[in-house]
Amino acid sequence: MRIADKNYQSIWVHEEDPSIIQVIDQRYLPFQLKIKNLQTPEDVVHAISDMIVRGAPLIGVTAAFGVYLAVLKFRNLENANQLIQEAANIIKASRPTAVNLSFAVNKQLEVINKIEKPDEKLNISFKTAVQLMQDEILACKKIGNFGKSILEQIALKKNGEAVNILTHCNAGWLATVDYGTATSPIYMAHNQRIPVHVWVDETRPRNQGARLTSWELGKHGVPHTIIVDNAGGHLMQTGKVDIVIVGSDRTALNGDTANKIGTYLKALAARDNNIPFYIALPVSTIDRSLEKGLKHIPIEERSVEEIHYMEGLNSQNKLERIRITPENSKALNYGFDVTPARLITGLITNHGICKATSNDIKQLLQAQ
Amino acid sequence: MRIADKNYQSIWVHEEDPSIIQVIDQRYLPFQLKIKNLQTPEDVVHAISDMIVRGAPLIGVTAAFGVYLAVLKFRNLENANQLIQEAANIIKASRPTAVNLSFAVNKQLEVINKIEKPDEKLNISFKTAVQLMQDEILACKKIGNFGKSILEQIALKKNGEAVNILTHCNAGWLATVDYGTATSPIYMAHNQRIPVHVWVDETRPRNQGARLTSWELGKHGVPHTIIVDNAGGHLMQTGKVDIVIVGSDRTALNGDTANKIGTYLKALAARDNNIPFYIALPVSTIDRSLEKGLKHIPIEERSVEEIHYMEGLNSQNKLERIRITPENSKALNYGFDVTPARLITGLITNHGICKATSNDIKQLLQAQ
Repeated sequence: MRIADKNYQSIWVHEEDPSIIQVIDQRYLPFQLKIKNLQTPEDVVHAISDMIVRGAPLIGVTAAFGVYLAVLKFRNLENANQLIQEAANIIKASRPTAVNLSFAVNKQLEVINKIEKPDEKLNISFKTAVQLMQDEILACKKIGNFGKSILEQIALKKNGEAVNILTHCNAGWLATVDYGTATSPIYMAHNQRIPVHVWVDETRPRNQGARLTSWELGKHGVPHTIIVDNAGGHLMQTGKVDIVIVGSDRTALNGDTANKIGTYLKALAARDNNIPFYIALPVSTIDRSLEKGLKHIPIEERSVEEIHYMEGLNSQNKLERIRITPENSKALNYGFDVTPARLITGLITNHGICKATSNDIKQLLQAQ
Repeated sequence: MRIADKNYQSIWVHEEDPSIIQVIDQRYLPFQLKIKNLQTPEDVVHAISDMIVRGAPLIGVTAAFGVYLAVLKFRNLENANQLIQEAANIIKASRPTAVNLSFAVNKQLEVINKIEKPDEKLNISFKTAVQLMQDEILACKKIGNFGKSILEQIALKKNGEAVNILTHCNAGWLATVDYGTATSPIYMAHNQRIPVHVWVDETRPRNQGARLTSWELGKHGVPHTIIVDNAGGHLMQTGKVDIVIVGSDRTALNGDTANKIGTYLKALAARDNNIPFYIALPVSTIDRSLEKGLKHIPIEERSVEEIHYMEGLNSQNKLERIRITPENSKALNYGFDVTPARLITGLITNHGICKATSNDIKQLLQAQ
């Protein structure tokens, strides 16, 4: 996608040096556009756990490059296989909720473990990571095309008025490699001059909506309005939302979906107001080992600093962190919640749109 | 209630000079405890619209003192009645959602308009305001005692474990004159050694939960944990919430309740998880002119600055405001939403507990 006059992905291989993986350091957006070099598996673990990169699909691709960087580092050592396996395990543990993380790492290990020679190992792990990256881009494009048809249908009833889409967190191109999942249908529709307007949930505590989604929509010229997470229910009650589209960190085979904390509340409000509620995701985000999501997907507990402190630009235009709670109050910070399938109208995937039921999801996966 | 070793109300008459009304300036909490003098009706309008004072019951009492200050200012002028009426109208318009505001102002006008002599007018308007203040304190005490019985019932089933109460915004003593509405049952239970723990919704965009509720609970020694507004649904899904108690800015005769934006989302989650959801309010917050609330209570749209900026303590321990959104993104800021009566388990009032139905509410009001 475009930032000013230049095309970007959220992750790419350095143009001149393939031992360097480059990512946009998302901790500084929307205030500063910084590029970060990842050169070791430790860099990758830090990038994932510290949310330099975030979003299930992007985490998966970054993790795949992490295994590649582990091969690069350890391949000529005597116990290379063991060290690579250990690095892979640490990468897998860097965020507990995203299924793409273990999917990507396992894929790498499967391929690498078949190869003996160090340089062939390196070669194949690089190719695998690049392939996963390309696959993600293609998957997001397809999600966009399938999802666009839903927006087109709504637009037909709106007599030229904008289709109002509410989204939570950032399931945009910054969360993937390009296009995004939840945002991909929006970008596709916008590019084809279907009028759209996006309600952007701020998404406390890390404000991925206010900081990232609004920024990327703005850079692409898509009309949008930032709201606090509390506002979506009222907007739905008063007819200001036509459809909700969010991403997924992990979807079970029955359709239960773990996504950013607060997603469940929006799903409840959508149901209460007869508004369609869609999850947009590549099929790689469906956890084939999990029949049900509710009470079975581990929910990450993150640092309470995210609640106690807020970051932004001060009056001197410098990034500053301020304390926003009383000194002695405790906090608790869950990163995700699980939206039960019964509240989900459908899944928009790279293999088409399906209902959030075990039958439909299994059919979709078999049709691959 | 207590702050360190001193008893406070949120509003009081200056000990030595009854022409000065004093309030805690809530804009600086929890970081600084500042007292503000209100000496003119203009001071009162500013205090209400700028949220130096907030919370429906406290707004009502402050407005009553505002009319008293108008009488103080205009009583000896030729067109005193007209000027007082105009000041009263401006005070009434200072916040559109809180019903206590017009209730208190109308009560004052009713009393004043019967009196001719300027000094008698002054005397009676002072007495009326003080009486309203005392009435609010008593009402909150009664709400606390009625509500405490519900917490006692839950405690019986918890084998000594704390009763987990979730609350949204600040319906604490800072929102009333003393005790609070939603917090009053909590303080009463805590004082009687019933173990309680409060989940405090941060309450974006003005963070009344993170800033005020946590502060006042902390000062009183009540165990509590701050969460982001997004987290309540997950906590309810995982059995960590026993009851939700919130306040009300305006409740219609059928039980529909306007309260801080986001309340509706918590009511939906409570219903989805079979958790009791109560509104705590003095009967003065029931709008007797309103049969239904949904789509009939005007919803205040507030400044988008509240969304774009956040205030807190910087690393030098100074209050600082930072920008937390991209420069070019729009925002929209509704202050309230309406929770339909069907999602409300009951109302905890100063006249007892009743169901959120037209019949029960009318009976409660008739029994006064």
